[in-house]
Amino acid sequence: MNILAIESASTICGAALFLNNELVELDEINQPRVHGERLPLVVHNLLSNHSIDVADLDGIAVSSGPGSYTGLRIGMSLAKGLAMAGNLPLIPVPTLEVMNKGITKEGVYWILLHSHKNMVFAQQFNSGKPDSEIECETLDPKKYFPRFGFNLDSICKPGDYEIAPMSAQNVGELALKNFDKWANSELSHIIPNYVTSFNVG
Amino acid sequence: MNILAIESASTICGAALFLNNELVELDEINQPRVHGERLPLVVHNLLSNHSIDVADLDGIAVSSGPGSYTGLRIGMSLAKGLAMAGNLPLIPVPTLEVMNKGITKEGVYWILLHSHKNMVFAQQFNSGKPDSEIECETLDPKKYFPRFGFNLDSICKPGDYEIAPMSAQNVGELALKNFDKWANSELSHIIPNYVTSFNVG
Repeated sequence: MNILAIESASTICGAALFLNNELVELDEINQPRVHGERLPLVVHNLLSNHSIDVADLDGIAVSSGPGSYTGLRIGMSLAKGLAMAGNLPLIPVPTLEVMNKGITKEGVYWILLHSHKNMVFAQQFNSGKPDSEIECETLDPKKYFPRFGFNLDSICKPGDYEIAPMSAQNVGELALKNFDKWANSELSHIIPNYVTSFNVG
Repeated sequence: MNILAIESASTICGAALFLNNELVELDEINQPRVHGERLPLVVHNLLSNHSIDVADLDGIAVSSGPGSYTGLRIGMSLAKGLAMAGNLPLIPVPTLEVMNKGITKEGVYWILLHSHKNMVFAQQFNSGKPDSEIECETLDPKKYFPRFGFNLDSICKPGDYEIAPMSAQNVGELALKNFDKWANSELSHIIPNYVTSFNVG
């Protein structure tokens, strides 16, 4: 299966190309506010480096949030344009599951992504599986422990959390694994999962 | 020539389909903060209503700013996705020229689009042609006169300006007229024209 995977939910801006279920190229950087300009270029280069047309793909995978509003909208808009023009399904991949991929801890832990100010998107996992709804709350070091996080340096002490890997490679690997369950050709049914503190009870 | 035109630089969220140089359908609404969800759906419906594939088009026209950061990024990302997958050129259309289209006033006048607070994007026109650089400045009623504007109600008195038409139809008509000059297949060279008060001398 051939998949293009896009990660733009945080300061990471990247894409990964999988051909015959194998990663053939990953291009990503960790830099804020470059996504709108850079992401289409990254995608274009990945495809042209391997002489792949969008029509050769089986689907477009996209990190679906929660995360940066603007980053999510840029990634989702580009993904929908590619999917619409190529008559391909989208595969929305939950961003906190992207971060969880590769963590091998047994038992209960939390995945945290910085939202704004001292707020984090947080989800409890248990031995690799999501084990709670996603919430957007003030970082509570006692509640969210043990924790793996991303972009928490401004609100955590150094060494106060383990880094959770965020990468378009993880987006693609999860999309391949869950293609039958997550792939969706009804593009209008797919919107980013913004998860604000307003819509969480 | 067949063109899909996208307008998302302001509270207008719309698209227009031109087949053989003629408008066949326009779908737009004036509503803030719906563009990310709505724009891909509008585009999908326009194409499917007329049994058009992206590959049947000659280009994707997109209102290129200045305007709303998020709106511009959503429109440009979707347009780049469509263009990349369909191997089509993009036709970036300056948003203030979109607003100017249809104004028949002779002599000098200003086109204004609300930016934020009491700031406007402003460009002087002379008998239908742009006659200054675009600036982002505090609304000065004496300087910017006579004026045609959009979304100025929060900073102007009622009747204090004439409405400038903002529509995906205008985007498409300008793209058709200027196709040879503006169409560009080097997608990475095309970015929205944000025009902030920071980068204007």
